[in-house]
Amino acid sequence: MPEFLKVLTYQDARQLIINHFPARVIEYVPLERCNNRVLALDLTSPEHMPAFNRSTVDGYAVRAEDTFGSSESLPGMLNYIDSVQMGREPQFAIANGQCAWIPTGGMLPPDSNAAIMIEYTEKLGVDTILVSRPVAPGENVMHRGEDVKQGSTIFQNGKILKAQDIGLLASLGIDQVPVFKAYHIGILSTGDEIIPLSQVPVIGQVRDVNSYSIAAALESCGAVPHRYPLVEDDIAALRQAVAAALNENDVVIMSGGSSVGVADYSVEVMLSFPDSEMLFHGIAVKPGKPTIGVRVGKKLIIGLPGHPVSALMVFNILCASVISPDSLRRVDAQITINVASQPGRDDFFPVQLAEDDEVTQAKPLLGKSGLMSILAQADGYVHIPYEKQGIRAGDMVKVNLF
Amino acid sequence: MPEFLKVLTYQDARQLIINHFPARVIEYVPLERCNNRVLALDLTSPEHMPAFNRSTVDGYAVRAEDTFGSSESLPGMLNYIDSVQMGREPQFAIANGQCAWIPTGGMLPPDSNAAIMIEYTEKLGVDTILVSRPVAPGENVMHRGEDVKQGSTIFQNGKILKAQDIGLLASLGIDQVPVFKAYHIGILSTGDEIIPLSQVPVIGQVRDVNSYSIAAALESCGAVPHRYPLVEDDIAALRQAVAAALNENDVVIMSGGSSVGVADYSVEVMLSFPDSEMLFHGIAVKPGKPTIGVRVGKKLIIGLPGHPVSALMVFNILCASVISPDSLRRVDAQITINVASQPGRDDFFPVQLAEDDEVTQAKPLLGKSGLMSILAQADGYVHIPYEKQGIRAGDMVKVNLF
Repeated sequence: MPEFLKVLTYQDARQLIINHFPARVIEYVPLERCNNRVLALDLTSPEHMPAFNRSTVDGYAVRAEDTFGSSESLPGMLNYIDSVQMGREPQFAIANGQCAWIPTGGMLPPDSNAAIMIEYTEKLGVDTILVSRPVAPGENVMHRGEDVKQGSTIFQNGKILKAQDIGLLASLGIDQVPVFKAYHIGILSTGDEIIPLSQVPVIGQVRDVNSYSIAAALESCGAVPHRYPLVEDDIAALRQAVAAALNENDVVIMSGGSSVGVADYSVEVMLSFPDSEMLFHGIAVKPGKPTIGVRVGKKLIIGLPGHPVSALMVFNILCASVISPDSLRRVDAQITINVASQPGRDDFFPVQLAEDDEVTQAKPLLGKSGLMSILAQADGYVHIPYEKQGIRAGDMVKVNLF
Repeated sequence: MPEFLKVLTYQDARQLIINHFPARVIEYVPLERCNNRVLALDLTSPEHMPAFNRSTVDGYAVRAEDTFGSSESLPGMLNYIDSVQMGREPQFAIANGQCAWIPTGGMLPPDSNAAIMIEYTEKLGVDTILVSRPVAPGENVMHRGEDVKQGSTIFQNGKILKAQDIGLLASLGIDQVPVFKAYHIGILSTGDEIIPLSQVPVIGQVRDVNSYSIAAALESCGAVPHRYPLVEDDIAALRQAVAAALNENDVVIMSGGSSVGVADYSVEVMLSFPDSEMLFHGIAVKPGKPTIGVRVGKKLIIGLPGHPVSALMVFNILCASVISPDSLRRVDAQITINVASQPGRDDFFPVQLAEDDEVTQAKPLLGKSGLMSILAQADGYVHIPYEKQGIRAGDMVKVNLF
């Protein structure tokens, strides 16, 4: 069915996937379940942090002016009047020439404006403190709102929440967080030669690999994968399976049915649903040319190549960063050998990283394409854009980490 | 109790934690639940992959010798005898001058030794195929065992299993995988000034931040965090809480009780258990000096600084890569400004990464130390070893990613 063939660049195909990816749904989740979740709304701070001027050291709350000119040889002398209790509002003020003990985190008493570290003081009798260096106004003090101002934007939507972000939200008392509901994505493997993992293949059969590897890749993008039973190359069975998967998921990923021959009725099935539209049929990349994108209503079907290496590479190139826009981690590295590329298509090849005292080295894992064992050795992949003819040994490249 | 003070370098403290970390337990887990799990044993392949010589292209199975000398102007001529069915063992051999249709993944018929891509052939009548270029013996063929040899080591223990690794295991039919059982780690926050998230702090109180941020950081290391209710600064209550947490977990992380004063009976509690031993009390790092390590029998208590920024930094520096040795991700980047450091201690400071066409830039987030909002902007941290006095703008550094 050549009328369906729409071979696009991978950027164009990716843009179509972005344009037609189902809209994200917001849900509120308790903070302790927000690790690695994607923030769905901008968050503003409900309060000042800290809520009061606090000491950042163990020492004495002072009026900075009273310490000016103090030195080891000529220490200043302050009148010790009281001590600040942790977690209590001090019920006294600091007058000229006075000081009070203050612990780290303690609230500065009224009229004090600095704290002096205990290391630069000495106790002389019951009520006198010697000060051996001056402090500036505001020194060793964190001011009200200095960390986070009330009403300021804490995080913008789209951010993946990590431990330190969760810490910041905890410190502001935000215990219900608006995050994007995880996408539910169905995975269907098709092909008469594909058998379940538990079976011993006879000659000519291969085990179902893609439903396992793509499920793991989806998990790593924060999606919830649903693996469906293998579907034989039978158009009625395939249509029924795809219909069920579409019904139960936001997106359906199919693999196996995209090489010439089998592809024909895979595409026929994809386009048999009401309001379905071929977005692309083939992308100009290596590996992964036979990739298909079909919109069905507000959902998407993506047909990955059947070959496990191609399927996983195309998933990474085309889908991973759409599902989880911030998941793409790129590092700089120096390529160890020349890599040739054919202009007119985008090439992606796996690399192994080796740390070096100077610059991380990226060793291309070329060999015969399609070896699973090679992909399993890779730390990431490098992209050669379609207009380029290759990369020279020693060039710095961006490595997209797996 | 100065007899307990054992201030170590962070490397020595980390080594003590490694030496005394509880032994890992092996469990067998179904392959579909192995994403990001740590392999516990070396795995060897139970079979050859592929199990037979297979074509890597759609085209014709041939004897390579029969194609030698073929060109577009002078195509070779082969006798088409049959077609290989996907998933079936061909019941015919290829004799001199013969060929058979073969799909990608199809099994090479006996006596054929190469496949020629359909693009370089033309059908002439029913049983003749024209060949417009030669193929070498083995071309477009993946040989039995070429991807993975039976008995060869697939992965070594300690590897974190990712999507492509799970794909490789699936293709070899390995559906129960020996992985390390996740560590169960208890988290206790102590301190009279610490209140639950749900409460509105009055002056002098701060919310419990560490149990949330450290729990998230533990999750990201593949551990199972158990958050315990806040413990007040009461020695009996603290001892009871620590005893319960030790009983229910492999390791207990405490925070809040390590600054001078409160620290005293935290340490007293830690050392009150039978067969307990102080490993270190203070580490020569910034931030995070007041960090404590205590062994209790075959378990560990780690006392983190109470300050949320220090607690999380020390967790990353000291604990994260011990819990998950392969979790540490480092990238090369160029520091944007001079950063001074005090010799005699290890400095760690957060940085923000900015991609650049040339080299990734690392912008130090210095400011007043201890701002949660600054840590939340950071992508990772940079280490200045204790013998160094700082880093110059433009220097390449290793950034440890959060």
